Amino acid sequence: MAHDAVEVIGAKRDRQELSDSQIDWVVEAYTRGDVADEQMSALLMAILLNGMSRREIGRWTSAMIASGERMDFSSLSRPTADKHSTGGVGDKITLPLAPLVAACGVAVPQLSGRGLGHTGGTLDKLESIPGWRATLSNEEMLAQLESVGAVVCAAGDGLAPADKKLYALRDVTGTVPAIPLIATSIMSKKIAEGTGALVLDVKVGTGAFMRTVDEAHELATTMVALGQDAGVATVALLTDMSTPLGLTAGNAVEVQESLEVLAGGGPADVVELTVALAREMLAAAGRGDVDPADKLSDGSAMDAWRAMISAQGGDVDASLPTSRETHVVPAPASGTLTRLDALAVGLAAWRLGAGRARKEDAVQAGAGVVWHARPGDEVTEGRPLFTLHTDEPERFERALESLEGGFDIGDGSAFTPTPLVIDRVG
Amino acid sequence: MAHDAVEVIGAKRDRQELSDSQIDWVVEAYTRGDVADEQMSALLMAILLNGMSRREIGRWTSAMIASGERMDFSSLSRPTADKHSTGGVGDKITLPLAPLVAACGVAVPQLSGRGLGHTGGTLDKLESIPGWRATLSNEEMLAQLESVGAVVCAAGDGLAPADKKLYALRDVTGTVPAIPLIATSIMSKKIAEGTGALVLDVKVGTGAFMRTVDEAHELATTMVALGQDAGVATVALLTDMSTPLGLTAGNAVEVQESLEVLAGGGPADVVELTVALAREMLAAAGRGDVDPADKLSDGSAMDAWRAMISAQGGDVDASLPTSRETHVVPAPASGTLTRLDALAVGLAAWRLGAGRARKEDAVQAGAGVVWHARPGDEVTEGRPLFTLHTDEPERFERALESLEGGFDIGDGSAFTPTPLVIDRVG
Repeated sequence: MAHDAVEVIGAKRDRQELSDSQIDWVVEAYTRGDVADEQMSALLMAILLNGMSRREIGRWTSAMIASGERMDFSSLSRPTADKHSTGGVGDKITLPLAPLVAACGVAVPQLSGRGLGHTGGTLDKLESIPGWRATLSNEEMLAQLESVGAVVCAAGDGLAPADKKLYALRDVTGTVPAIPLIATSIMSKKIAEGTGALVLDVKVGTGAFMRTVDEAHELATTMVALGQDAGVATVALLTDMSTPLGLTAGNAVEVQESLEVLAGGGPADVVELTVALAREMLAAAGRGDVDPADKLSDGSAMDAWRAMISAQGGDVDASLPTSRETHVVPAPASGTLTRLDALAVGLAAWRLGAGRARKEDAVQAGAGVVWHARPGDEVTEGRPLFTLHTDEPERFERALESLEGGFDIGDGSAFTPTPLVIDRVG
Repeated sequence: MAHDAVEVIGAKRDRQELSDSQIDWVVEAYTRGDVADEQMSALLMAILLNGMSRREIGRWTSAMIASGERMDFSSLSRPTADKHSTGGVGDKITLPLAPLVAACGVAVPQLSGRGLGHTGGTLDKLESIPGWRATLSNEEMLAQLESVGAVVCAAGDGLAPADKKLYALRDVTGTVPAIPLIATSIMSKKIAEGTGALVLDVKVGTGAFMRTVDEAHELATTMVALGQDAGVATVALLTDMSTPLGLTAGNAVEVQESLEVLAGGGPADVVELTVALAREMLAAAGRGDVDPADKLSDGSAMDAWRAMISAQGGDVDASLPTSRETHVVPAPASGTLTRLDALAVGLAAWRLGAGRARKEDAVQAGAGVVWHARPGDEVTEGRPLFTLHTDEPERFERALESLEGGFDIGDGSAFTPTPLVIDRVG
């Protein structure tokens, strides 16, 4: 059925539900260029402010999936499970998680993105490994899933092209922070990707898109419903992102920390979240009988990592790049580190060159922030609290500014740790 | 101060008031092309849904005025007063009003528009007079105001160019019906035009943009405040537009009806509204001592009309054009005409060729609708109720469709006439 853009915009502006036919038409017409950017951005703002019903969100997701190709992993000899994080600081979890789940017998087809703004990108982190390449053909991806059991690579252009166009438009029109638009964007790609099971890591806190548990819960509920309606076994964990994960934020520094986890060590919070997400992925894929913690201690997760990185050209024995310059920030007082703010650390890493301001910018492999204590740890005045890494020393000043006010040192008796996993939806 | 579009959009999206500096920047940057259409349309939708404060509306208006030139009538030997109608069906009031007020000693510098959609355009009506031209230079306009006292002409490109660009964008993005945007659009042009006094005719009813008295009152209050804040003596009348004005809707047919009013006759409602608006314009311009009704009966308003039309090349003695085809609709029953719907009549006139669907369309000078009774009048079954005029007989069918259900004939004892002037704001 034929519609026109002003009619569809007017309906949502006037708080009406859009019909299936209106949604199919507007997504398709926008993708082929018959609805103009200025019309779609007005509609997106009306959606942001007036909302969409569960039916509308489902239909919008289907229309975005229908705009491109769908992948199919049904020929694989094992079940598939994927994980998606809504983005955080120091969130290197995909790196140990994908080989860990593969080592447990479930294939992980992870299509990842690059970082924009203060949250890091998984592909940027992996590209700090000499030789590793992010781009695979669909055939290469399928072959690697069968042989190794895990792939982390860039999403091709064929998957949900409507979302690609909409995402770029939202970025410049102030229409990013809308739960229906975030949910449909994530889920259209994950459903089109063809995974059998999906675990969502919805971040909550200062370093995340969702600042409150209520917002994060709404986003998680919306995405879980979309996945289940599309036949994908979907669960979500709400996890804390007021504090950055682990002890590193950047690219090579996060790969190094992931290797420690795969070797059976590493920071307790990174291990805890990796194992919790692995358990959810295995259960959703029907392999809840396997305990992933065993695969970290027996070395099989590390073997899967080496196979996964090698299969994409990465030199697993090469040294990781380091930055040309470092700057140590000593603790200004002695006491307990009672707060370490994820946004402050994320901005510092970004300003040091670990992230990019515009899509076309390059990132520095060695740039980032390393912190030497986590909330609850004792610190001593004058001893290193942060080490900043960059190739360009002129970046230190702005990075130091973002760390100002980003931590508290005080009386440890008043400190209560925040739980890492806040809630589960599924 | 430099801003960026996403910041300004985000502020309005999040229900913050925009600062003066944000408003100045976004209007100026949009006018020069540094803010993209898709960014401005997202901002317009956020304004439509979240509103603007009186301060924001005032600043937005000032920024639109500052985007172009301002006219100056201070060299004239008499005061100036203008009228603006928000648009209705059969609304030919400007035609008798401008010369009437000029005959009372107050100059009328009326910059008018063309019709779009079912409401007619004053310039389209006047262009049905052989030889008359709508385009004057600023110098010609000033000279005619001094010599004749009245000008009705097209607004030049130099006045509020931001509004011209915004209006075209709103038309395709579903962002027309927002009181702050309607008010700033009208008032930026009227203030830039340089009139000393301004009377607003805010239409309410089925044939108007504002369907309810509450909406019309809000628009009137907003515009009166904008005018007064800019030093223009401004008042508004809320007038009925559920019933079309007079007995004609079209181009030449409305000129003919206006001539009857200027000759001391014409339909009572057209005379009433013309005189009421003239009184307000004279009072606002400091000439409340003159009674305009006298100038209709003594022929001086007609003299001013002839001078005004001649000065713009119009042949005041030529016959007005008539349509090639007519079609009579007889009354389907006898009784009292209890309702005549302005939207139905306006759509019929538009479909007959009196208006245009797109800006670049031409209108037919002779096209339109004439009705032979007004609500409250007795009608007789089989006698003419409407006469439709067009050059293209294939247009009759769709025009007849729009009249279906557009009138009621019933028991006159239950009929109470709607007052023409509903309220006054000022």
